[in-house]
Amino acid sequence: MRKYVFGVDIGGTTVKMGLFEADGNLLDKWEIPTRTENGGEAILPDVAGSIQKKMEEKGIERADIIGVGIGAPGPIDGDGVVHVAVNLGWGVFNINETLSKLLDGMQVKAGNDANVAALGEMWKGGGQGYKNMVAVTLGTGVGGGIINNGEILSGAVGAGGEIGHIHVEDAETESCNCKNKGCLEQYASATGIVRLAKRKLAESSEESVLRKGKISAKTVFDAVKAGDQVACQIAEQFGYYLGKGLAAVAGVVNPEAFVIGGGVSKAGEVIFKYIKPYYEEYVFHAGRDAEFKLAMLGNDAGIYGAAKMVLD
Amino acid sequence: MRKYVFGVDIGGTTVKMGLFEADGNLLDKWEIPTRTENGGEAILPDVAGSIQKKMEEKGIERADIIGVGIGAPGPIDGDGVVHVAVNLGWGVFNINETLSKLLDGMQVKAGNDANVAALGEMWKGGGQGYKNMVAVTLGTGVGGGIINNGEILSGAVGAGGEIGHIHVEDAETESCNCKNKGCLEQYASATGIVRLAKRKLAESSEESVLRKGKISAKTVFDAVKAGDQVACQIAEQFGYYLGKGLAAVAGVVNPEAFVIGGGVSKAGEVIFKYIKPYYEEYVFHAGRDAEFKLAMLGNDAGIYGAAKMVLD
Repeated sequence: MRKYVFGVDIGGTTVKMGLFEADGNLLDKWEIPTRTENGGEAILPDVAGSIQKKMEEKGIERADIIGVGIGAPGPIDGDGVVHVAVNLGWGVFNINETLSKLLDGMQVKAGNDANVAALGEMWKGGGQGYKNMVAVTLGTGVGGGIINNGEILSGAVGAGGEIGHIHVEDAETESCNCKNKGCLEQYASATGIVRLAKRKLAESSEESVLRKGKISAKTVFDAVKAGDQVACQIAEQFGYYLGKGLAAVAGVVNPEAFVIGGGVSKAGEVIFKYIKPYYEEYVFHAGRDAEFKLAMLGNDAGIYGAAKMVLD
Repeated sequence: MRKYVFGVDIGGTTVKMGLFEADGNLLDKWEIPTRTENGGEAILPDVAGSIQKKMEEKGIERADIIGVGIGAPGPIDGDGVVHVAVNLGWGVFNINETLSKLLDGMQVKAGNDANVAALGEMWKGGGQGYKNMVAVTLGTGVGGGIINNGEILSGAVGAGGEIGHIHVEDAETESCNCKNKGCLEQYASATGIVRLAKRKLAESSEESVLRKGKISAKTVFDAVKAGDQVACQIAEQFGYYLGKGLAAVAGVVNPEAFVIGGGVSKAGEVIFKYIKPYYEEYVFHAGRDAEFKLAMLGNDAGIYGAAKMVLD
């Protein structure tokens, strides 16, 4: 008898959903809108309805479903209790119990979306083969997830792996979104790279292709690949802060590998050339051999990791 | 039938040993010398012999022993494999299997000593009631152990919690023992506090009781308690670096509590007054509520944690 599992990744505007076989084979994926009005009260009923519809469509019986895994943006502890998820309108309640009731007692496991995505990358993505890894997401912000001995490290309130706000620069004068100054996110996110680029261009008059058109993490790394010297100096700064920050992370959890994803990672392995020298300079010797890998699952990491949660 | 467990803490000069009941009641503790000659080949046979002797002495049967837990100074992975322990003369081998064979198949579990001591503090010391905590040892160096969801976080090679070499100061000119510059250990260990004190006394001519006699972490904090202004400035620097370093740790593992032990912690809760303001300044908001507690088990933390390992 084939067994199935659903992986659900709740975002602020859409819910990504996947139907998997127990070996991780993705059979189907689809999206539904996230209805955040009225404290997000419709979100879980919508998810339950969509799961039931998919079961009917595919002729899958209740007994053949192992369970439903869920990632959601917010602090979620190891028991599935969310502690206020602003983007969804949610307060404090137990996701596992709530969704399980809507699905006739089906097994449900929920976790923080970044942590769940990290588990997905370990299972079927760039972290395959590692049991101790750190997933780093370089997007609008810097997020992350820690996998310890094959399992998600949630921490006290699900904020394990929230590495974007590690302090890496004493001399910073601008504030981060979190109100502190000198957070990793201010230098290593897509937004942070643009900020570094603008500063660099303002403080020198050196020629650069970046002086024409809109600056983004992509245009910076495209310029790096084309040999633009100013872009290379910006990448050097990015690598300095990220390497130093990840060295601190290694000093805490001693991972076998870092798996780097998010928009900035689309530049490819060229980013490692800038990160690794600084990582190696700052890391304690026991962490020096950690591998650097690119994430592979993109936006599907969340549904993969969610599915994996109920298979463990 | 009462069940028993042995907790063993191997140090560079002595092996501490404890006989516990399964509920954690310590029945007896004793020490044997650590014989490190010939690659430390006698250490585990000595431990096995001492355990068998104690069983005879107490009239305890083999069937009443749940197992033996061991902490040892070195990188030890989750399977009990040590990857070179310089202080003991050990190379690479499986401690669990080796000692189990010497004890007629008894269950053995080994881990890094700092991590094992952290587990001890969670079980019967300053970390009671917490499942996610970080033990910080401020001794000659700065060590630590991470407890995640009630279990030791070993990391790739058992170096999880080796937080002493997190980089916290860019402007440092002297090298740490690890050869990097600006490591947490250079400011927050007993040795580091003496270094900070000597610098501070050299750069000012302000009166201080510290100008007479030998400087140690103890004399510095005794002077703080007596209201010595120079000592308070030194404590402020200590608190700045440790608070900032622990904020980075919180950004990775999001603990419920920090449990501070080692010689420096003998100064008592006064150290928290200097650590907490900087911790709160640098930590991400999700980590702001972490508690600060003093370790309670002193040198017995290792045998308690070792015993706890085989009870899980």
